[in-house]
Order: sequence, then structure tokens, then C-alpha cells
Amino acid sequence: MAVRVVVAGNTREETEAWRCRFARVVPGIEFMAWGDDDTGPDADYAIVWKPPREFFPRQPGLKAVFNLGAGVDSLMAMPGLPPDLPVVRLEDAGMARQMVQYVLHGLAEVSRGFDQYAAHQRAGRWAPLEGIAYHEWPVGVMGLGMLGSEVAQAIAQAGYPVAGWSRSQRQIAGVDTFSGEEGLEQLLARTRVLVNILPLTPDTENLLNHRNLAKLLPGAYVINVARGAHVVDEDLLALIDAGHLQGALLDVFRHEPLPADHPYWRHPRVRVTPHVAAATLEDETVKQIAQKIQALERGQAITGVVARGRGY
Amino acid sequence: MAVRVVVAGNTREETEAWRCRFARVVPGIEFMAWGDDDTGPDADYAIVWKPPREFFPRQPGLKAVFNLGAGVDSLMAMPGLPPDLPVVRLEDAGMARQMVQYVLHGLAEVSRGFDQYAAHQRAGRWAPLEGIAYHEWPVGVMGLGMLGSEVAQAIAQAGYPVAGWSRSQRQIAGVDTFSGEEGLEQLLARTRVLVNILPLTPDTENLLNHRNLAKLLPGAYVINVARGAHVVDEDLLALIDAGHLQGALLDVFRHEPLPADHPYWRHPRVRVTPHVAAATLEDETVKQIAQKIQALERGQAITGVVARGRGY
Repeated sequence: MAVRVVVAGNTREETEAWRCRFARVVPGIEFMAWGDDDTGPDADYAIVWKPPREFFPRQPGLKAVFNLGAGVDSLMAMPGLPPDLPVVRLEDAGMARQMVQYVLHGLAEVSRGFDQYAAHQRAGRWAPLEGIAYHEWPVGVMGLGMLGSEVAQAIAQAGYPVAGWSRSQRQIAGVDTFSGEEGLEQLLARTRVLVNILPLTPDTENLLNHRNLAKLLPGAYVINVARGAHVVDEDLLALIDAGHLQGALLDVFRHEPLPADHPYWRHPRVRVTPHVAAATLEDETVKQIAQKIQALERGQAITGVVARGRGY
Repeated sequence: MAVRVVVAGNTREETEAWRCRFARVVPGIEFMAWGDDDTGPDADYAIVWKPPREFFPRQPGLKAVFNLGAGVDSLMAMPGLPPDLPVVRLEDAGMARQMVQYVLHGLAEVSRGFDQYAAHQRAGRWAPLEGIAYHEWPVGVMGLGMLGSEVAQAIAQAGYPVAGWSRSQRQIAGVDTFSGEEGLEQLLARTRVLVNILPLTPDTENLLNHRNLAKLLPGAYVINVARGAHVVDEDLLALIDAGHLQGALLDVFRHEPLPADHPYWRHPRVRVTPHVAAATLEDETVKQIAQKIQALERGQAITGVVARGRGY
């Protein structure tokens, strides 16, 4: 009997698009689209991205659920998710390279003055700044998982001093690492550019609040590529307006799309991008999940299974 | 008798600033500022950046001249430069790292759509683009010297297909290399983002003209970090306006500062920066030149001596 996999995206179109991508490349597995009349309640696996609330109660036979992204916070928050169902998050799938590129771009923008040169051009002004002294731009990376470690190492390779912080202590070549509450104080106190790439959990929600952001070096800059709910928006804006922070580059927001009346859109010191730091690359995603289903069917262990207690 | 070194910058202030930097760190060498009353015509070495015309005729005893930059085109064009005086150009001194960062920033800007997101933000518009397919952005690097090779390799590491072109054939891991006139045709025909980092010589002046730029892939983008005189400005602008080229990021210009009435300043598809892709980093420059003078005094060979026939 063929393995049965049900695909459920956030919309009907998304569901069908993902189902086709999988069906094309994985023979021997039957891929069904959630919402089709002939999709029974007997799927072995699910592949999802923000599925509807009724999804899990109607699929009682699942052996595992694959999330179409690295961040599983919205999936973990679904009331119908069975507590013992293995949740598998996407690992890399081309995301690290994009994330590294996004963060390095934002870091160059602020530390090399590319944002100022754009303003100078609008004013027709030729005004070279002093050459960059890399040691004057210490970067702090919060979150040292697969993506965070790669980002931290790439920043070090680009010539900046880098420190990193994570829940449990890590060792990364070329990166000064900190952990725990005391470690967070130390990291913030030495950081001029803060890069947030933490998983969103009850422990990390609102972590970038007034108290913590105020500990950054004067004139610090914040780059958020993790989740909007890590940041207390009013606190970030207050510290920018007070001059303690130089500005922020934000790719993620508490509510997406960012509401039209949100002050971030028009703030001269905030740069907004529409959640594009690292797109899930389709081909690599399909390959990774298909290989993991095949491994599970052969009784092999797989990586990327979420520790339900800790939430990522 | 102490070794005597004369420093001559483009202005009196620049001359004095460089003289102080050298004097601070190199004991056993007497550093004189060109233009001081007590600077005699008997210096052993010169350290220069665009010195005045009368400089070389008044320093007949030089054993070598050190240029305070990697590009020696303006020095080589000086009528008073003795034909057999060894000319030493600056090697790296922190420039490669900055150049890599500048080029990667420009490449991300156009290929990841960061320029579009900035425009979208001004319009309050949330509009994520499709994730980048790196293979759709083949890059061509013209010039594979010390800086060009590092730039090409960094672009390859960032995930883009890269080809390179140089006068004589080179081999660089991860980069498809071309040379000669036929090789230039091949490189241009496969390139979507052209990075110019060639030395300026009579052979390369005006090389980025209508005939050659028209050979690039439709919608191509030009990044120039070498010299303004490589580009025929009217040809570049005509091809952008005709839609064959998508735009350009220019750091160098035929006349610098870029004249206030130049169309580059206000063209919506041209981004201008004021010759800042790679600043000479003072500490590393001082160390490098001081070590080379000491090596020459010990009778040792040094690197970075310009081949006068070829001009770089």
C-alpha cells in the first residue's frame, strides 16, 4: 500500500501548488491536497504551512507532520495539534545562504554608510565618509541554531568582531559565545549591531524590550530576521526617537502584512522588508521532506524533529 | 646614515598627515614632508599619492616610489616620472575585504530586490518578490588581479555562478575564466551582472562602450569599482534608457568629484557612491610600505612592483 501524505497550506492555491511540486518528484508516495473531496482521514504524514484549525482533529492517523518553514511557533500554537505527534521543521533548504546575504547587506548598509550615500545622491552631494574601522562595529547575534551559527560565522569572515548568545552555551570558531541571563547582559553591553535570529517561544517573546534594548551600546542598530513578536515595537521606536538607537532593519512583524498605519512604514530610521530574508526554496524543500518520509518509512532516524518541551 | 623617505600627497594637509603616520611607527627611517623647507633633493624613497608635477624632477636620487593606492594609472601618466624608476603599488592593505563587501552589497541590492523594497516602503506597500534563484544571476568579473580574484571567489561562495576575464588566462577555483578578445565576447554574452575591477591602461580605457555593453544579457546590471575612464558614460546611459541594461552602480568616475551637472546624479537607475568601494586603510598601508622599504634596504626582493610596459 502506498504511503499517503496530505498537504495543507494556508490557502487552497498554496495547498495545490505544494501538492503538485511533491507529486512531480516523488514516485511511490500518494500526495493529496487537503480540502479535496477524496482526501480521507487516513493520511500517514502531513506537510503543512499554517493549516486550518480543523486540520489535525480530522487527520488522527498521522505519524509525523512536516512544517514548510524553519520557525514552528505558529504550528506549535495550534490548539488541535496532538501533544505526542512528531513535528519536523525545515532545515536550511537554501535559507541559510539567503539569511547570511540579507544580514550582511543590512550590516554593510549601516556600517559602510551606504544608506547615507543614497541620501547624498538625492542631494547631489559628493561626500566620502572615513574608511570603515571594522573593530568599531561589534556585532551581537542572538540565536545560534543552524541559521544563527552560519550568520555569525559569515559576519566574522567579513571582518567584524562577533559575539553570539543562545539558551545553552555553544562553541563557534571565531565567535565569542554567551548564554543565560547574565550572558545576555554581557552580549548586549558590547553590541553595536544586534542581529536577532532566535526561535519564538514563550521565553523569547518580547525579549527585545526597553530594558534589554537600552543595554546596547549608544547608537546601536537592530536587525530582526526572526519573528516580529520578539520586539516590543513601542520600545524600539522610543529608543530610536530618544537617540539611543541609530535605527533598525526589520523583516518580520507581529502582524503580517505590516498594517498600513504602522509607524514603521514611515519612520526615517526604520527600514522595512516584507518577510523576505530567507524564502523557502521549493526544490530543496521538496527534496528534503521527501527524503525524510522515505527514511521514516525505512525505520531510520531523521534530524529536525522539534523538542516539544522547548518549542523549537 | 639613516634612510631618507619623502612623502608627497595631493595636498599639503594630506602630505603632513601621511608623514606623521609613518614617522610614528617606523624607527630608523627619516620621513620628510614634500614642501617643507628642509626637504632636500636627496631622498632614497618616495611615498606618493598624486604628487605635484615638479616632484620627480626634484628628487633625482630615488631608488623606488611607493604609490598610496592599488591603481597606478595617474602616477604612470606623470610626465616627470623617470622611465626606469621602480614603481610599487599598494597590495591589499585591507582593500580586498572592503571591495568584496561593496560588490556583494550591490549584487544583493539588484538580485534580491532590496532596491525595490526601499521603493515599496516609501509607497507603504507590502509586496514580497519571488525567492531568488541564484542560477538566474550569472556574474562576470572583469579583471582577475589580487582584488578581482577575491571578489570573484566571494561571489561564487555567496551562491552565484561566476565567470572572470583577464588579459592573460587565469585559473581560479569555482570561477569560469576567459581571456583575450574572443574570451571577452564569451564573458559578456553570459553575464547578467558585470563587475569591472580592471586596471586602467590604454588597452582598457573605454572598454565598457556601446559595442561591448550591448553584448551583455538583456536586463544586465553594471557595477564599476575600477576607474571611471573604463566606461563611456553616454553609451552606458543610452543602453539603460533603451532598456537593454537594468541599471548601474558606479563608484568611480572620469572626473572626480562627479560634476554637479552630470546626469548620473539624478538618473533613477544609476546609483552613485563617492569612490568609497575600498579605502586605503592607514595602519595596514603604513606597515606594508615600511616593511618593503626595510626589505629593499636589506637587498631583498619585494612584491607589487609595477611592470612598466603593461602599466599595472
